[in-house]
Amino acid sequence: MQVFSIFDQQMMARALKLAAMGRFSTSPNPMVGCVITSRDGEILGEGWHKKAGGPHAEVHALQAAGEKARGATAYVTLEPCSHFGRTPPCANALIDAGVGRVVCAMLDSNPAVSGKGLAMLNQRGIATEHGLLATQARELSRGFFKRMEQGLPFVQVKLASSADGKTALANGQSKWITGAAARADVQQFRAAACAILTGSDTVLADNPSMNVRINDASPVSEPVRQPLRVIIDTQHRVTPSHQIVNLPGEILIINGSGHREGFSEAVQFYAARLTPHGKVDVNDVLLELGRRQINNLWVEAGATLAGQFIAEGLADELVHYQAPVIMGNSSRSLLNLPAFEQMDQIIHLTYTDIRQIGADLRLIARLT
Amino acid sequence: MQVFSIFDQQMMARALKLAAMGRFSTSPNPMVGCVITSRDGEILGEGWHKKAGGPHAEVHALQAAGEKARGATAYVTLEPCSHFGRTPPCANALIDAGVGRVVCAMLDSNPAVSGKGLAMLNQRGIATEHGLLATQARELSRGFFKRMEQGLPFVQVKLASSADGKTALANGQSKWITGAAARADVQQFRAAACAILTGSDTVLADNPSMNVRINDASPVSEPVRQPLRVIIDTQHRVTPSHQIVNLPGEILIINGSGHREGFSEAVQFYAARLTPHGKVDVNDVLLELGRRQINNLWVEAGATLAGQFIAEGLADELVHYQAPVIMGNSSRSLLNLPAFEQMDQIIHLTYTDIRQIGADLRLIARLT
Repeated sequence: MQVFSIFDQQMMARALKLAAMGRFSTSPNPMVGCVITSRDGEILGEGWHKKAGGPHAEVHALQAAGEKARGATAYVTLEPCSHFGRTPPCANALIDAGVGRVVCAMLDSNPAVSGKGLAMLNQRGIATEHGLLATQARELSRGFFKRMEQGLPFVQVKLASSADGKTALANGQSKWITGAAARADVQQFRAAACAILTGSDTVLADNPSMNVRINDASPVSEPVRQPLRVIIDTQHRVTPSHQIVNLPGEILIINGSGHREGFSEAVQFYAARLTPHGKVDVNDVLLELGRRQINNLWVEAGATLAGQFIAEGLADELVHYQAPVIMGNSSRSLLNLPAFEQMDQIIHLTYTDIRQIGADLRLIARLT
Repeated sequence: MQVFSIFDQQMMARALKLAAMGRFSTSPNPMVGCVITSRDGEILGEGWHKKAGGPHAEVHALQAAGEKARGATAYVTLEPCSHFGRTPPCANALIDAGVGRVVCAMLDSNPAVSGKGLAMLNQRGIATEHGLLATQARELSRGFFKRMEQGLPFVQVKLASSADGKTALANGQSKWITGAAARADVQQFRAAACAILTGSDTVLADNPSMNVRINDASPVSEPVRQPLRVIIDTQHRVTPSHQIVNLPGEILIINGSGHREGFSEAVQFYAARLTPHGKVDVNDVLLELGRRQINNLWVEAGATLAGQFIAEGLADELVHYQAPVIMGNSSRSLLNLPAFEQMDQIIHLTYTDIRQIGADLRLIARLT
């Protein structure tokens, strides 16, 4: 086990913070940050990867460091790339700059190239180390890594309910269960997603926009990139006049049957596999989104579709807003799931973040 | 508005901490703490009221201070009493000890005697001030004050559910939704209550003990005082063989019709008023518990009885444990309430404490 100094840890933590600045723009690439320091601990240059096709984090940091990079240490949150893609390999840039040591949080997750970037550096006499804050680095780009490894996006399911798990009165009334702060908070998750998925039930009931709406108080920097909007609409109930298909951005309607008339060119269609019960095969939808380079999927749907993601084990994380209200047993329940016969069949969560957003609670939980 | 020094605030905060040591033993009296300090800020004596009939906080503190109390300042969380009860008035004790100044958090809440204790001190040339951390002092003995002012106990309703507000599968299975840490946490609330109330549905379904069970890790000091156990049993379904009526402690069965055969002498009966629908009038039950000097009532009942307390506006606080599990719409809901027709009829909460207890969440909320 490699032992890193406190200074090493501080610099990698800083590189991770820089990497996270790309959370609204970097996909389909992973977020990467880089810090270059002198032998006596001075920060010479910093950088982060902003956008696919643009310079990598290392290139930004090397530019800032200039001639001083010679003999310096570079902290990078991901193993420097060793291949020519849309930009030349970062390993070459580090070699050309003459850095003396490269510390990376984790190796490239692609087993075919993992370690090759470091090997290139080693061959040129540059010391390399890895495994510093690797868990955090992986977590930061968890959607990218899941897609690389499984071909599927990381799936977050948004839930909003009363404290007793209800979403609407028996008669359907529900508007504004959660407060303004919680609704603004949702915009951040939407902005960080590559795609937002909903169902036709929600479109017909609320005619939502399902786009990213950012105000001055938001941490999302302009200009906002609109995530792909995905609508599951097996029964062809969504019409060209619904808001969700008319706002700027790309739209993908999944209806099990191909193209439909009257929709604008921004609207694409995918004929997903159907289950024996005539429902859309959600796993096939996720594979299609993986092929479209969707790293992070934000599901904002009703009790049935959200329940389907959870029941089929396809949801990775729940983001559950709970309003401080009680609605009682006759109100509508948060999640439609198959009826369980035994307590050992119920679904288990692990909370990773619990906080108050305005007067509401926000619980983030992993499905375990 | 009185301006108090930082030292005054520190000493009153200390007196409040001392008062809280009585939370498992002081009722039906209020919790009271006292700190006596010299002019140069030395703590000369401290005390708290442990048990009705035993010495008051001031007496303990004066004993500890001894002769040094002359000219000292006494911080007391409640106005010193001016009347002869089971013990002589504390105002006299402070006068006899020759203290120079008395600061109290709040006046006696009984309007008939409020201010009399301080007036007695003023007449003997002792400076008095009040209103320092009054909100905290009142909160500490909120059950006592509510009973004094309204004749009713402070009512806490315990709830336990899944993250989606369910308590049991459709077939009734439910054991151990919450974890061991949450169940141990409940014991503290039971121990701090003067009475624990449940319904015959719960007794018949689970045969619970509803007593206080303390282990070594608990902050409750031995010996444990068993709260009065109150059972609402309109239909005479609880039998002398149920656990709840056989464990040490007093029991009150509320059945709307007086005494019943076969129960031990520890079991008392109360014929509560019934509603036009044949249900027990919960408000009448609370008035009876007020007459029995119950300051704090802990309700641990099923969806119907807990829902009745909430729907009728008789619950002051909810203590809601949420297990990190999802049970789905076909499972049983947490609270049976009348069906609401409009969103402005739903019940609003204000969270006062949000934390994790083991893997579970514990939410404490006031009903607003």
